[in-house]
Amino acid sequence: MDGLHAASSRGGTLIETVMATVRQRIAARQLTPGAKLPSVRAFAKTMQVSTSTVVEAYERLAAEGVIRSRPGSGFFVCGPLAPLSLAEVGPRLDREIDPLWISRQSLEAGGDILKPGCGWLPADWMPQQALRRALRGLAHAKDMVLADYGTPLGLAPLRQLLARRMGEHGIEASPEQIVLTESGTQAIDLLCRLLIEPGDTVLVDDPCYFNFHALLRAHRAKIVGVPYTPTGPDLDLFAQALAEHRPRLYITNSALHNPTGATLSPVTAHRLLKLADQSDLTIVEDDIFADFETEPAPRLAAFDGLSRVVHIGSFSKTLSASVRCGFIAAPSDWIERLTDLKISTTFGGGRLSAELVFSLLKDGSYRKHVETLRQRLSAAMVDTMQQLEPIGVRPWIEPRAGMFLWCSLPDGLDAADVARRALADGVVLAPGNAFSLSRTASRFLRFNVAQSKDTRMLEVIAKAMRG
Amino acid sequence: MDGLHAASSRGGTLIETVMATVRQRIAARQLTPGAKLPSVRAFAKTMQVSTSTVVEAYERLAAEGVIRSRPGSGFFVCGPLAPLSLAEVGPRLDREIDPLWISRQSLEAGGDILKPGCGWLPADWMPQQALRRALRGLAHAKDMVLADYGTPLGLAPLRQLLARRMGEHGIEASPEQIVLTESGTQAIDLLCRLLIEPGDTVLVDDPCYFNFHALLRAHRAKIVGVPYTPTGPDLDLFAQALAEHRPRLYITNSALHNPTGATLSPVTAHRLLKLADQSDLTIVEDDIFADFETEPAPRLAAFDGLSRVVHIGSFSKTLSASVRCGFIAAPSDWIERLTDLKISTTFGGGRLSAELVFSLLKDGSYRKHVETLRQRLSAAMVDTMQQLEPIGVRPWIEPRAGMFLWCSLPDGLDAADVARRALADGVVLAPGNAFSLSRTASRFLRFNVAQSKDTRMLEVIAKAMRG
Repeated sequence: MDGLHAASSRGGTLIETVMATVRQRIAARQLTPGAKLPSVRAFAKTMQVSTSTVVEAYERLAAEGVIRSRPGSGFFVCGPLAPLSLAEVGPRLDREIDPLWISRQSLEAGGDILKPGCGWLPADWMPQQALRRALRGLAHAKDMVLADYGTPLGLAPLRQLLARRMGEHGIEASPEQIVLTESGTQAIDLLCRLLIEPGDTVLVDDPCYFNFHALLRAHRAKIVGVPYTPTGPDLDLFAQALAEHRPRLYITNSALHNPTGATLSPVTAHRLLKLADQSDLTIVEDDIFADFETEPAPRLAAFDGLSRVVHIGSFSKTLSASVRCGFIAAPSDWIERLTDLKISTTFGGGRLSAELVFSLLKDGSYRKHVETLRQRLSAAMVDTMQQLEPIGVRPWIEPRAGMFLWCSLPDGLDAADVARRALADGVVLAPGNAFSLSRTASRFLRFNVAQSKDTRMLEVIAKAMRG
Repeated sequence: MDGLHAASSRGGTLIETVMATVRQRIAARQLTPGAKLPSVRAFAKTMQVSTSTVVEAYERLAAEGVIRSRPGSGFFVCGPLAPLSLAEVGPRLDREIDPLWISRQSLEAGGDILKPGCGWLPADWMPQQALRRALRGLAHAKDMVLADYGTPLGLAPLRQLLARRMGEHGIEASPEQIVLTESGTQAIDLLCRLLIEPGDTVLVDDPCYFNFHALLRAHRAKIVGVPYTPTGPDLDLFAQALAEHRPRLYITNSALHNPTGATLSPVTAHRLLKLADQSDLTIVEDDIFADFETEPAPRLAAFDGLSRVVHIGSFSKTLSASVRCGFIAAPSDWIERLTDLKISTTFGGGRLSAELVFSLLKDGSYRKHVETLRQRLSAAMVDTMQQLEPIGVRPWIEPRAGMFLWCSLPDGLDAADVARRALADGVVLAPGNAFSLSRTASRFLRFNVAQSKDTRMLEVIAKAMRG
């Protein structure tokens, strides 16, 4: 009996052995999403099994959603996300901690679930009175505002106002260089459509916002991570990644980096742009946390003058995530194509949302609201650090502002295990490896200080840490 | 009472009066860009108002971007607003008539442009009173409704209601098989991400909604057109296309086909599904015009039981295009991956829009409104045919319902030329070849009967036809 048959007799059938081999190749990235599997005949030969065994193994993997069949052309690897139960309520304990784990858990969480791992503020931190007033105001708007599509670029006065706001950060953008989108995520998605082809390489920070991984996978990009330091990406490794991988794009946050809360330093910003120039690299600067800043950080888009840096933002984190509105500020000569892509893929933008955001920005409600937010967040930051200190959960750095605290667990603890145990007790945490392409953040957790005020959280985490 | 208070009592507040005064001084160039504004205390004295009134006025002007605050040194006048370029306000005569030509022209058209070529109803045909009532209602909603992300699949009661509505058309879908999207276009976009790889072939009708071409190009699909007949696609040519191109997907409208206004016949529906079965073809049934129907057409999704047919819809055409909300009903085992893709590419859905649509569907406003729409459209259809008849513009078929009339021009005329000339006179037409992959519809124009009621339209078209 050869090794293969020995293995199969120890616990599974031949079919399962073939299935396990495919899974291993996928895990080892020898087979990447979209890749074609070996033909049934060829793989049967490799595995020394019958073709019907391989057919059955492929069919079962297809049923599981690991691979899929395309008639006439064979089997292909699916995205890394396994299908799950359809139950919509309650936390899912069975899901693997993949880039979408935290999003799904946070978005699905019911009212009694605590979400220190989630990436947004509690609803009652948002400017409820102002939102309600704006809705009543919209009830008197012109017919077209309530029923018609937005213009291709989106509400002109809002774009003018955004141009002004960017000016305050030194970013010179005309209103015609600004395209409104449904959200910050959609802004990056649109830019990926414009800028990358399947198979292109994109640099991200390691760690970075986990949804960059998921989004880039949807674009079939090759993702390369560069370690992030308290002042920006590690420039030596960044230069090395440029030379080695010739990436097309780099996506980052300059101010209040997610998940670490770090801020790009001016010297790193300059050197980074110099490297980008030398390699003709395009940079997407995702600054959706900008309005939480207390002291302004350097903006790549300001240094660069919107030539190779695209600046994006949204109001989901500071105003409302229910009202969808984001934006892109890009080089002038990209705007036509960006707009065509926007229309092709979403048709008109959300006019009502844009009008709502505009009315809150215009009347000063927004400015006052974010001032209050900054103060509340600053107090909550101190509070959360003090809460976590006694149980040995320590911040990597002390962020200048914002909602995120990137913390390490004591030696020997795995954040994913802690997160899984905490979820069973109704607390959604954000384990570090969801943010880390290299999966080297297994000791880290990201805390949202605004969602960490319930004392039950600490009890649950302490218990989860005990195992 | 001094002048100031008289002014404020006439309708504005003191704050607004102070704001107006600053604006006047800027307009009169008493305050030029970069100039420092009077201190709060000094200006309060000048204006005979409290300092808090001036503070509030300055804050609001800063929010509008008229002035800006420099901490520690006061408020300063901003530079003049960048004017919007001409490109943004008027039609573009230079653009080639590509799949996006009509969208761009229609979306960009100003108030005095007539748009018989556009694909939606005038704003005043929409249920304005109901929309305004719904907005006022939302002003009393819970905090989470106004500020939080939607759940991954989207508002559960709306999905329940949609499931019931589909049931009325014989489509059996559970609420868990329904995913809310931002729009019908985004629904198709998401399905393309799930179902096709770059280079895959997709069948469309010829003619079909022009944006299918643009969207599929964004997905790098190979597009193959099948001639459309008054009862559905030409089945012989459909079978031939299946054999020859092995397409992965077919996108179509069953009821009130865009642009022809035709409706799929039951016999064609059955044969089509049989062919699809034989070739393992997936079908996206885009039924965004369904609610205009007077007699229900057969639905592929009903015959097929949502096994290889995906059903999509939206409310942009019947309720509001400003409030973005669409949906997908798909086989159960696709939902997880669809939802992951939705989160990866747009994060949460537009909760506010979904709540707004739900409130209008729930209270019966929508049902009443579409009944009225059907009657108005039916009258406008007759009207438009009668208008066009004398100038030799003839309908291909007489549609059962809906807003579209697919018309041929007299021999020797090219619709693109006519459209270009009409655009110069302020009328946006929809030339046939924008809908035709084979570009064999050069004699056709699509009319939107709800946008064809202005008598100037006929004059402009008649003139454009004379050359």
